[in-house]
Amino acid sequence: MSSEFGKLLRVSVFGESHGPAVGVLMDGLPSGEAVDIAELQRFLDRRRPGQDALSTSRREADVPRFLSGLSDGRTNGFPLLAVLENRDQRPGDYNAFRDVPRPGHADYTAFVKWRGAADMRGGGHFSGRLTAPLCVAGGIAKQILARRGIYSGAHLYRVADVFDHAFPLRPTEELFDALAGKPFPVLSDAAGEAMRAAVEKARRESDSVGGVVECAAIGIPAGWGGPMFEGMESRLSAALFGIPAVKGVEFGAGFAASGLSGSRNNDPFALEQGRVVTTSNHSGGILGGITDGMPLLLRAAFKPVPSIARPQRSVNLATGEEVTLTIPGRHDACVAQRAAPVVEAVTAAVVLDVALEYGGLNGHTERSRAD
Amino acid sequence: MSSEFGKLLRVSVFGESHGPAVGVLMDGLPSGEAVDIAELQRFLDRRRPGQDALSTSRREADVPRFLSGLSDGRTNGFPLLAVLENRDQRPGDYNAFRDVPRPGHADYTAFVKWRGAADMRGGGHFSGRLTAPLCVAGGIAKQILARRGIYSGAHLYRVADVFDHAFPLRPTEELFDALAGKPFPVLSDAAGEAMRAAVEKARRESDSVGGVVECAAIGIPAGWGGPMFEGMESRLSAALFGIPAVKGVEFGAGFAASGLSGSRNNDPFALEQGRVVTTSNHSGGILGGITDGMPLLLRAAFKPVPSIARPQRSVNLATGEEVTLTIPGRHDACVAQRAAPVVEAVTAAVVLDVALEYGGLNGHTERSRAD
Amino acid sequence: MSSEFGKLLRVSVFGESHGPAVGVLMDGLPSGEAVDIAELQRFLDRRRPGQDALSTSRREADVPRFLSGLSDGRTNGFPLLAVLENRDQRPGDYNAFRDVPRPGHADYTAFVKWRGAADMRGGGHFSGRLTAPLCVAGGIAKQILARRGIYSGAHLYRVADVFDHAFPLRPTEELFDALAGKPFPVLSDAAGEAMRAAVEKARRESDSVGGVVECAAIGIPAGWGGPMFEGMESRLSAALFGIPAVKGVEFGAGFAASGLSGSRNNDPFALEQGRVVTTSNHSGGILGGITDGMPLLLRAAFKPVPSIARPQRSVNLATGEEVTLTIPGRHDACVAQRAAPVVEAVTAAVVLDVALEYGGLNGHTERSRAD
Amino acid sequence: MSSEFGKLLRVSVFGESHGPAVGVLMDGLPSGEAVDIAELQRFLDRRRPGQDALSTSRREADVPRFLSGLSDGRTNGFPLLAVLENRDQRPGDYNAFRDVPRPGHADYTAFVKWRGAADMRGGGHFSGRLTAPLCVAGGIAKQILARRGIYSGAHLYRVADVFDHAFPLRPTEELFDALAGKPFPVLSDAAGEAMRAAVEKARRESDSVGGVVECAAIGIPAGWGGPMFEGMESRLSAALFGIPAVKGVEFGAGFAASGLSGSRNNDPFALEQGRVVTTSNHSGGILGGITDGMPLLLRAAFKPVPSIARPQRSVNLATGEEVTLTIPGRHDACVAQRAAPVVEAVTAAVVLDVALEYGGLNGHTERSRAD
Repeated sequence: MSSEFGKLLRVSVFGESHGPAVGVLMDGLPSGEAVDIAELQRFLDRRRPGQDALSTSRREADVPRFLSGLSDGRTNGFPLLAVLENRDQRPGDYNAFRDVPRPGHADYTAFVKWRGAADMRGGGHFSGRLTAPLCVAGGIAKQILARRGIYSGAHLYRVADVFDHAFPLRPTEELFDALAGKPFPVLSDAAGEAMRAAVEKARRESDSVGGVVECAAIGIPAGWGGPMFEGMESRLSAALFGIPAVKGVEFGAGFAASGLSGSRNNDPFALEQGRVVTTSNHSGGILGGITDGMPLLLRAAFKPVPSIARPQRSVNLATGEEVTLTIPGRHDACVAQRAAPVVEAVTAAVVLDVALEYGGLNGHTERSRAD
Repeated sequence: MSSEFGKLLRVSVFGESHGPAVGVLMDGLPSGEAVDIAELQRFLDRRRPGQDALSTSRREADVPRFLSGLSDGRTNGFPLLAVLENRDQRPGDYNAFRDVPRPGHADYTAFVKWRGAADMRGGGHFSGRLTAPLCVAGGIAKQILARRGIYSGAHLYRVADVFDHAFPLRPTEELFDALAGKPFPVLSDAAGEAMRAAVEKARRESDSVGGVVECAAIGIPAGWGGPMFEGMESRLSAALFGIPAVKGVEFGAGFAASGLSGSRNNDPFALEQGRVVTTSNHSGGILGGITDGMPLLLRAAFKPVPSIARPQRSVNLATGEEVTLTIPGRHDACVAQRAAPVVEAVTAAVVLDVALEYGGLNGHTERSRAD
Repeated sequence: MSSEFGKLLRVSVFGESHGPAVGVLMDGLPSGEAVDIAELQRFLDRRRPGQDALSTSRREADVPRFLSGLSDGRTNGFPLLAVLENRDQRPGDYNAFRDVPRPGHADYTAFVKWRGAADMRGGGHFSGRLTAPLCVAGGIAKQILARRGIYSGAHLYRVADVFDHAFPLRPTEELFDALAGKPFPVLSDAAGEAMRAAVEKARRESDSVGGVVECAAIGIPAGWGGPMFEGMESRLSAALFGIPAVKGVEFGAGFAASGLSGSRNNDPFALEQGRVVTTSNHSGGILGGITDGMPLLLRAAFKPVPSIARPQRSVNLATGEEVTLTIPGRHDACVAQRAAPVVEAVTAAVVLDVALEYGGLNGHTERSRAD
Repeated sequence: MSSEFGKLLRVSVFGESHGPAVGVLMDGLPSGEAVDIAELQRFLDRRRPGQDALSTSRREADVPRFLSGLSDGRTNGFPLLAVLENRDQRPGDYNAFRDVPRPGHADYTAFVKWRGAADMRGGGHFSGRLTAPLCVAGGIAKQILARRGIYSGAHLYRVADVFDHAFPLRPTEELFDALAGKPFPVLSDAAGEAMRAAVEKARRESDSVGGVVECAAIGIPAGWGGPMFEGMESRLSAALFGIPAVKGVEFGAGFAASGLSGSRNNDPFALEQGRVVTTSNHSGGILGGITDGMPLLLRAAFKPVPSIARPQRSVNLATGEEVTLTIPGRHDACVAQRAAPVVEAVTAAVVLDVALEYGGLNGHTERSRAD
């Protein structure tokens, strides 16, 4: 692996939070696909902090520059490279902690792995900033999939102790569009308000909260994927766990299935206008690692933001002493809010990769068949 | 992917439940490693149904035959192939369902993917039988890791509504050995009894239950893994989701972290005889995708066994009618019991792969050096 | 890599010359493909020493046993494992050289890599015996490709100082069949006789000769492959150099192109019944890494067999002394004779892999389209 | 594959000849390695056309800009992205041939693969311009290897009918430095003069010539690589054939070995101050896919530049007629001259990848150890 995933569509991410730029390389896109830049920017903006008082006050211009892969607004089949310049940084916020690792961060482990050579300012290559290029990749993937009737959406299933409604059995494109238009991606606005309050409370208390993003995709034909390690869950989880702060991934009923009986968890088959469907979707759209035609349904759990302004216990790696550290600076109290588009983006990229492998999209648009 | 995983240590599984044999190919093992066949067999027997009335009554001789890769009881560095012949089959149990997919099984999806050519008797290549060769691979990996001070253990964290104790902050080799010696792998015998009762109850009711396996590994140095898609969670989950019936994977506090505050979830650093440790382990031993030296801790959620003897709603793919089907035959009411060694095996194989990449084990047991 | 190659069709080889068996695992075959066992055996027999006085006198029963992947004579879509038991061995032939590496063999390098743990009897996993399972894989691939109008053939382009005719611009299926039927695969029988004489002469002199195999494939549509490292030459050479004794690979005019002028080497485009063709084929059917519809044409150079009965200079790794060693036993004086089917097999496996990626064969036979 | 190669060190190239930029992404570099920018630029300049009247008159500023992966002049362990802006283009040179493929170019095959969507101006992603970022990657790899006593060099072994001397049995770092300092990389200046004359002659005749680059690397320890598809030849050839215009790759005696006897081609072992060496090097430093400690020696054959100003026969893909086309513009009469640093660069990148896998460089320059 490394900072890349995918089989036919290889997605590689690069960049450090305080380096010149971050970006993404996509190798294996089919050619002739129109990329609507305005639509892509709207998708990226769903992630951009600053739209909402709850997120970090750091502003960045997340307008990607394409160095290759596009000609006259369409993919040309060659590797696509998108760059996002880093502009709004306050290096001073992060300089004091070279020797004192922040709990919950990768400072300590990066130090051990790279003996201090890693540029960990702002989190380096571990930073949430790296989710921006993931969204560029996923945004492009979503457009290509949408042309083939595959749509996705994501919402905040949980923030702190507040739960949103779950996706219905058959989420629609309209539901996904409605979610995308909301600044705070929830199905229940009441839940959304409670979530905002929980985040605000954490912020005031110099603390943070975690959350769970639920993502669904519709229109995926049955038959994609394979058994064992070739399965959809393996491919999706390998990519989803690459998103910083993700500590759990589940499909369909997920961990809840462990408490269900078989008679309850099994999804009965039925016919609907000649199509095979299931009357429940505890499988999350996947049976034996292969799609069954029902909506793909997954959840990613995000741990609470580790950067909090409270004093925390740590050690000074240079002096070998236990110390107390306090992290100043601007921090999100919850990443899950903007993680919804990131989870959706990664899911879309993996689904496109799978579509290329099983759906005949390879080469040029005319060859795509969902059947 | 496919039916294989790993980067330097490639593990490929083959075989169908009702074919001649199942087995595993391991490519990339270091040479000179002794393989204690008796110890390996004991590990395999932890999985073997028939030791315990709760499991399926099917008996199989899970004694692997090594066709390559071992010389005089030691790995020779060449690809290792182990074969487990299939002997105890009752094909009649499965023949009636070619056209009528069983809910919760891969029958339907395999039909779509391979248009009926897949040999789905007994579940084909999707069968739980494929976990036997995974245990051969993991059993060998465990022995190699143990020589380097890396030990692992797994227990039933949950079965139905019954919860076991969680692993302590610092599980020991002794604790792992004790677990391995129990027919029912639990920390609390009282919980074990309640679990057995729940399984028995389900069996009597022609139903099934699910469970969660918790696995820990100690002795892994800090610094292994990498950021983003190179992370430990990505590598482990890609392999764990390849185990049939797994629908969720989490690390450390996992999904529970989404409900914790940052001040609670962050693991404070401290010193212990000069070593950097954390005083809690919500990270599960992984920060930023890289090991931090604390015990690796993960959980895999298993859905309830889909083969239940109750009538279920399905469709006849040949006639296009909705039908009711009833599955006869011998079925486990819960796979989680024997899934504990399987989760441990897969975890060990991935940890060995990581050890080969970062720990200098490549080539021969005396670490290779360039100059 | 390792002992496997391929992207969608993964081919892994295992086994040691003096171990219990050798074999091959093929993961990613499309399902529903009939495998004609008799035809496969005929292809394997083209490789089998003993048909011809020129080859080694060792007899082996190269009849593969399929442990998985086939049901009722057809691929079932699951990983396919074929085993070839090793039977006719004379271990005594090889035991005396543990400490004294044979020049031209992998004894020394395997010793360094695996510190003596490698089982190098008979060459271990480096042995030409490993070409038998490669032929099983390639034989199956050939059958699948033939159903789609893709045919291949190989002949001895050169043995010692004797050259055969080259393939014509448009080799035909009939030409390939004629070659396959000959015990000594040459286009010119006169050249064949001269080659046999050269090999016999070497044998009598306790020496050996090398050769070049030329392989061609017809019926491959234009448009398969990709630029740079995704190219056909990269994929084919990576697999071909995995064949023991191969020290050079070229495509089309190959090394000779380096001495041609551009005006000569460029293949002019023309039309033939509406199809784009070239009037020469110095490109070997590949332009920019992508097939152009003309016959694929490649050559693999085999070094002379290193096992010769003459005294050779070596060193005793245990004592640190320079010594003279003499290798007894039965040895081919030239592998190129039986290497022709091996080159053809590997080429077919790679072409099938490419066909799966670009030709829509994934999943089931009905989805293949060559267009 | 795709436009990337490598196992632990992944090298991905992007960019089109007439797009905004070309560049390279290197993922997996060890951290803490100093990158001497001036030395890197000198290496890049060995490739840069314009230094010499023989090459194309196009001028480009090949000064890479690093967007990630370097901190304070050292690798930081994160993915490294280098960008080379495209500046000196004359799009008018290439616009007339959208429908009429140039013989010997990828126009036709790219058209079939991407149905005209590929941006083939200037050759698009197939252009020799893509060798510039390859040299950035290789230049960095060379510096890292040099610190470990591994040095490489390349010269023009052949241009048209003119042959240079071959590398001696034991090329030295001094020899490599001398070669690097020459504008025309040859061992024999007389041969160099004859080569220049041959290229000039071709240029005057509106034709082109091909060539062969020979590359050697010293200081590689024995024991790196593996049998079969894991071998050094497989890894190197897969990358070398990714260089535009390469049609043949050989190691050691290569194709010439096919005409040698075994007694001649085998390299006898001997001792030299306690070290095992061979007294000849027909193996090219590789036995059984594993390095033997002798110099790595390989050759890559380049076809003659396909862009020549003479009229050539082609077809008009839009009208379906056979036509004659003439290519105006500025063209090299021979790429082999600047291909020498490219072959050296690709070789270095692969050797570094192998060093990371077998030589314990992973993580940080001080070799990582597990326990």
